Amino acid sequence: MSHNSFGHLFRITTWGESHGPAIGCVVDGCPSNIPITENEIQTFLDQRKPGQSRFTTQRQEADKVKILSGVFDNEAGEQVTTGTPISLLIENTDQRSKDYGDIKDKYRPGHADFTYIEKYGIRDYRGGGRSSARETAMRVAAGAIARKVVPGMKVRAGLVQVGPHQINRDNWDWDEIGNNPFFCPDKDSVEPWADYLDGVRKSGSSIGAVIEVIAEGVPAGLGAPVYGKLDQDIASAMMSINAVKGVEIGAGFEAAAFSGEENADEMRAGKAGSNEAAQFLSNHAGGILGGISSGQPIVARFVVKPTSSILTPRKTVDRSGQDTEIMTKGRHDPCVGIRAVPVGEAMMALVLADHYLRHRGQQG
Amino acid sequence: MSHNSFGHLFRITTWGESHGPAIGCVVDGCPSNIPITENEIQTFLDQRKPGQSRFTTQRQEADKVKILSGVFDNEAGEQVTTGTPISLLIENTDQRSKDYGDIKDKYRPGHADFTYIEKYGIRDYRGGGRSSARETAMRVAAGAIARKVVPGMKVRAGLVQVGPHQINRDNWDWDEIGNNPFFCPDKDSVEPWADYLDGVRKSGSSIGAVIEVIAEGVPAGLGAPVYGKLDQDIASAMMSINAVKGVEIGAGFEAAAFSGEENADEMRAGKAGSNEAAQFLSNHAGGILGGISSGQPIVARFVVKPTSSILTPRKTVDRSGQDTEIMTKGRHDPCVGIRAVPVGEAMMALVLADHYLRHRGQQG
Amino acid sequence: MSHNSFGHLFRITTWGESHGPAIGCVVDGCPSNIPITENEIQTFLDQRKPGQSRFTTQRQEADKVKILSGVFDNEAGEQVTTGTPISLLIENTDQRSKDYGDIKDKYRPGHADFTYIEKYGIRDYRGGGRSSARETAMRVAAGAIARKVVPGMKVRAGLVQVGPHQINRDNWDWDEIGNNPFFCPDKDSVEPWADYLDGVRKSGSSIGAVIEVIAEGVPAGLGAPVYGKLDQDIASAMMSINAVKGVEIGAGFEAAAFSGEENADEMRAGKAGSNEAAQFLSNHAGGILGGISSGQPIVARFVVKPTSSILTPRKTVDRSGQDTEIMTKGRHDPCVGIRAVPVGEAMMALVLADHYLRHRGQQG
Amino acid sequence: MSHNSFGHLFRITTWGESHGPAIGCVVDGCPSNIPITENEIQTFLDQRKPGQSRFTTQRQEADKVKILSGVFDNEAGEQVTTGTPISLLIENTDQRSKDYGDIKDKYRPGHADFTYIEKYGIRDYRGGGRSSARETAMRVAAGAIARKVVPGMKVRAGLVQVGPHQINRDNWDWDEIGNNPFFCPDKDSVEPWADYLDGVRKSGSSIGAVIEVIAEGVPAGLGAPVYGKLDQDIASAMMSINAVKGVEIGAGFEAAAFSGEENADEMRAGKAGSNEAAQFLSNHAGGILGGISSGQPIVARFVVKPTSSILTPRKTVDRSGQDTEIMTKGRHDPCVGIRAVPVGEAMMALVLADHYLRHRGQQG
Repeated sequence: MSHNSFGHLFRITTWGESHGPAIGCVVDGCPSNIPITENEIQTFLDQRKPGQSRFTTQRQEADKVKILSGVFDNEAGEQVTTGTPISLLIENTDQRSKDYGDIKDKYRPGHADFTYIEKYGIRDYRGGGRSSARETAMRVAAGAIARKVVPGMKVRAGLVQVGPHQINRDNWDWDEIGNNPFFCPDKDSVEPWADYLDGVRKSGSSIGAVIEVIAEGVPAGLGAPVYGKLDQDIASAMMSINAVKGVEIGAGFEAAAFSGEENADEMRAGKAGSNEAAQFLSNHAGGILGGISSGQPIVARFVVKPTSSILTPRKTVDRSGQDTEIMTKGRHDPCVGIRAVPVGEAMMALVLADHYLRHRGQQG
Repeated sequence: MSHNSFGHLFRITTWGESHGPAIGCVVDGCPSNIPITENEIQTFLDQRKPGQSRFTTQRQEADKVKILSGVFDNEAGEQVTTGTPISLLIENTDQRSKDYGDIKDKYRPGHADFTYIEKYGIRDYRGGGRSSARETAMRVAAGAIARKVVPGMKVRAGLVQVGPHQINRDNWDWDEIGNNPFFCPDKDSVEPWADYLDGVRKSGSSIGAVIEVIAEGVPAGLGAPVYGKLDQDIASAMMSINAVKGVEIGAGFEAAAFSGEENADEMRAGKAGSNEAAQFLSNHAGGILGGISSGQPIVARFVVKPTSSILTPRKTVDRSGQDTEIMTKGRHDPCVGIRAVPVGEAMMALVLADHYLRHRGQQG
Repeated sequence: MSHNSFGHLFRITTWGESHGPAIGCVVDGCPSNIPITENEIQTFLDQRKPGQSRFTTQRQEADKVKILSGVFDNEAGEQVTTGTPISLLIENTDQRSKDYGDIKDKYRPGHADFTYIEKYGIRDYRGGGRSSARETAMRVAAGAIARKVVPGMKVRAGLVQVGPHQINRDNWDWDEIGNNPFFCPDKDSVEPWADYLDGVRKSGSSIGAVIEVIAEGVPAGLGAPVYGKLDQDIASAMMSINAVKGVEIGAGFEAAAFSGEENADEMRAGKAGSNEAAQFLSNHAGGILGGISSGQPIVARFVVKPTSSILTPRKTVDRSGQDTEIMTKGRHDPCVGIRAVPVGEAMMALVLADHYLRHRGQQG
Repeated sequence: MSHNSFGHLFRITTWGESHGPAIGCVVDGCPSNIPITENEIQTFLDQRKPGQSRFTTQRQEADKVKILSGVFDNEAGEQVTTGTPISLLIENTDQRSKDYGDIKDKYRPGHADFTYIEKYGIRDYRGGGRSSARETAMRVAAGAIARKVVPGMKVRAGLVQVGPHQINRDNWDWDEIGNNPFFCPDKDSVEPWADYLDGVRKSGSSIGAVIEVIAEGVPAGLGAPVYGKLDQDIASAMMSINAVKGVEIGAGFEAAAFSGEENADEMRAGKAGSNEAAQFLSNHAGGILGGISSGQPIVARFVVKPTSSILTPRKTVDRSGQDTEIMTKGRHDPCVGIRAVPVGEAMMALVLADHYLRHRGQQG
């Protein structure tokens, strides 16, 4: 019931504000004897780190993670989880003592400034405080552990749309993801996207994006009717990421225009000699039927709205309720969707690790 | 952590299979002294009831709800909630002793038959058992109570797309919803939809749909960062409805192609004399900023895939793992999205009632 | 977080008032393929049933349980759990239309009448409503299922003290439990207790009691630090039973006067050929170390206060806040602790079933 | 469902091992605008700090708490909570690089060494790791915040029994608590206890104790039937403290021998001009009826067993399953119950803060 926790058997609790001394995460319920090191977690954090290209914010954060508890050397001298809570911490290093005057007293349209005040009557306005996407660093860190909980599982994601520009899915190549600053799986989209985003950046504007996350090697049987559905928890996970406004599973909104014949994934006998119970001839279901995984790849997509921190003045009100205008100064992020890619992966891994343990609990 | 419960402070637990003796729901955490009667709940159930038009399944269920606990007459002789759990029960009356032979041993593509067996090793195959949309009757019943928890709140929904045919949003008229069998707010879409769906029905096929749910009168401040976001819980709620494959808040997937200037809802001073803290000049955010309600209407949409119970044979496998074909016999539902409209309303009401109590708990 | 649910992975939600149409329970999270019948559950309910002897209330309730969902015949024709929620229901048959005038407007000292009004502003005063020990019937019913979840586990309980009269523990004989109306394991205590309780009964008074519950065959490793301790959850379970005012594990309060030498259970190597990791030379810990089961029998005790429904007038106030007196009329229960014995067993089984699944979830 | 979290609306999650780099706690769900400083929390931590007298362990820990998130200066320049998670951290400073050889490979009787290995297959053996009572420092820190959530509430505790020696309750004087190293409210017990404990200490032995916790100023109406009872959650809270083996509310185990006449607290009209609904003529119920607070002081007692870290060799087994002996070296704690006093207070405050918010959520 905690507002800042996610998951049930595999559960994370995050804390920290953008410009406080540190941010952190407690991972509870992780099985013991899973090898994990700070370096391993750091690899994923580095993918999300700001300032990696001209297309993301220039904020400089080392984002060095420390493990403060829950690990110990096993008899082979390897650092492994002990089954007790794993505390992860990242110190905030780039807290410039800048003048927050403007955002201190004015609500940025499209931000949580107004609603935090409505709810709490107070807010840490420095860099967005708790509502800052900085919190997602801890999701990525925790996700690095979650990935190791489900044996054989592989979670990957890519950017499939930037502004109005979708990838050509025929070109999908996972190996391309690491070759461009967009996590784009379509080689042919990289150059046009770079040109397009340069325009967005130079005009001081911003643009939305769509991310697709795919988990392979997920055993059939994860998830549970009726309010513990796997797709329900994935929707919850993705929608909890800052700036996300929509989530789809498999065919998603396209399914509205499908006929029953087109939509239902037909089945054939599993491959001889495999332990597959069946093969599916398509995957409109995104790997989930009745809220339970089918053994097919789990496929989810989510949309990230454009940041409203833009260089054009916008109408707003101040804390005293007067009309005014606001314009973002300083660091600017033309497409926040890019850095949401590793976050989407992490959330998928967290959901699946939790459901893996939940299923094992109920069904053994 | 219960698989069949939804909500935290206002919490429902549903039970029952499609062809068992009854289905039911326990509503826990409802504040006391809220007037409620079986008739009031029945009004909402009747909207969802099958067999209301030729466009939905002809299954005949009286769907008469009984309240078995949690209410008592107050001193004015009015039946009110007592603060203890409210047990709701609907007896299943249309359990024809038909031959289930085919679906007993074959997996219907697009259904949960296969995944239930993979998870549990056994399933009540009669009418889909627990995976049947019959469970949603209890959501509607519980939703009727939830609606009364948030003072001044109004939750309504309509069908905005059937197959490829979207409504003309300029025609939106809430009063039309009750005048047609589709819960369609656009008068001009009714006739074309009826023609279109007659074609679908006669061909033994089925089609998807999109539902839009709007909650008005929701106070600012509901929801909580970071994993108790209001939009997150709405996404979870809608995705938990049978056959839903996608959820959007406000501008949703359209936001991918928006610029920051277009997307962020600008603000002006609240109306003089009102208790509004601010006015918004648009509502792309769907009434939620940073996971917290802004006071604007909450807007969500979800897509319902076409049912795979169609009159055309489809490839599948049987329990012994052999290739075979299956074709649905008997009652057939050309557009299951229609009956999802009152279910979407109910889920929205449940999320908001829960967050209303959660907010009151934390912030008073 | 639900107020009327208990457990996490194996979770029950109960509902119903003493004099409403029925009481019930939803068991969620039960593994599939566990054989269970109404008769099997009934056996345990019959142990708790009122009116079994002159020492318990003469209320006549058939207490016939019905299973409304969550079971199905497996291929061998045996009724088994399906993994979906199991709904249990008992109709209330002895709702005499008696005059509730007195308890309607006066608060019975030692009862929940006053606090329910303070909390909810309304209460179902008929027979105690939701605060009636009648609710414990559903615990016993759910416990009958929980017992089957942990392989090889045996949960038994006995009355070890009535008023000031403790059993002689040297006489402990489980076989005696079924031979007397007190669930007393000490043959020599039966007659003196009967005489003593006849005196209490005839004087219209009541008396407290202590129950001891022992679970054998519980594997080592159940429970979890730091807030999921097995003894913590047992304490919570027992204290949730009506009229319970104290709970002990193992040596309990006696441990205050123990020295470290006396208290700590020394260990020796496990028996050769067994799969025991160790043997303990005593069991002051009650089978739990650091919140985790050690493989020894789990031992808990709880005290049940005397009912305040007695035939002597007591000072109280009425709803208008005026001083008055109240005296219980009608059926009278000299020692409510007797019927708490099967309830204590059930709660122990519920805690252990939940922790068995939780442990399997985390550690496999 | 998290194993290392406690509470629902007011919820703490603790982490950290005795000899890791730090221990910490995340407090989630705290209302905003509550003034809180590190110094205020430190005051309570200092009460629990080791090495305060010769009767507790000589381990030297500064136990300096840092607040890492969830607070901000309000417009008056006062540091207050913001409604977001409060992260508390204490660095471990006394991690001597001592030889852990003995406890590394042998199980200390009465400790969690054996059960951690049975559960997790690995353990951080340094100083008990996660099972160390060091974790309770974080409870005390979180409790300092919880105390401020319920307006007017005062939570105090004292040691009422050491070994076989109980206080004389007629001498109860809260002001004495701070005047002696035992938190003893009875002046006349201090000297005899000091003599007695010197004997225990010199013989290298240890002894148990009983703590009584009293909360005053708790409004009527907190708690909830049936599995959210206030006494149930207090029992859970106290039993979660290291080495606790029993919990009582009000008259507790004494109630077994009470008659109904003696036990039930009679009532009279509330004082004229007060807002009390009623006065009680006694408090055997410990301030809780039917699981709900009555407005009387909440009274709980718990027993702490003697530590098994003693200077006499005890029989045990080693990790390879062989018989051996073990003797604690180094710092030794003759009566761990003493330092449990502030921990008991903290747990009481945590339960009441949570129930205060839960009640406000449901009933407004």
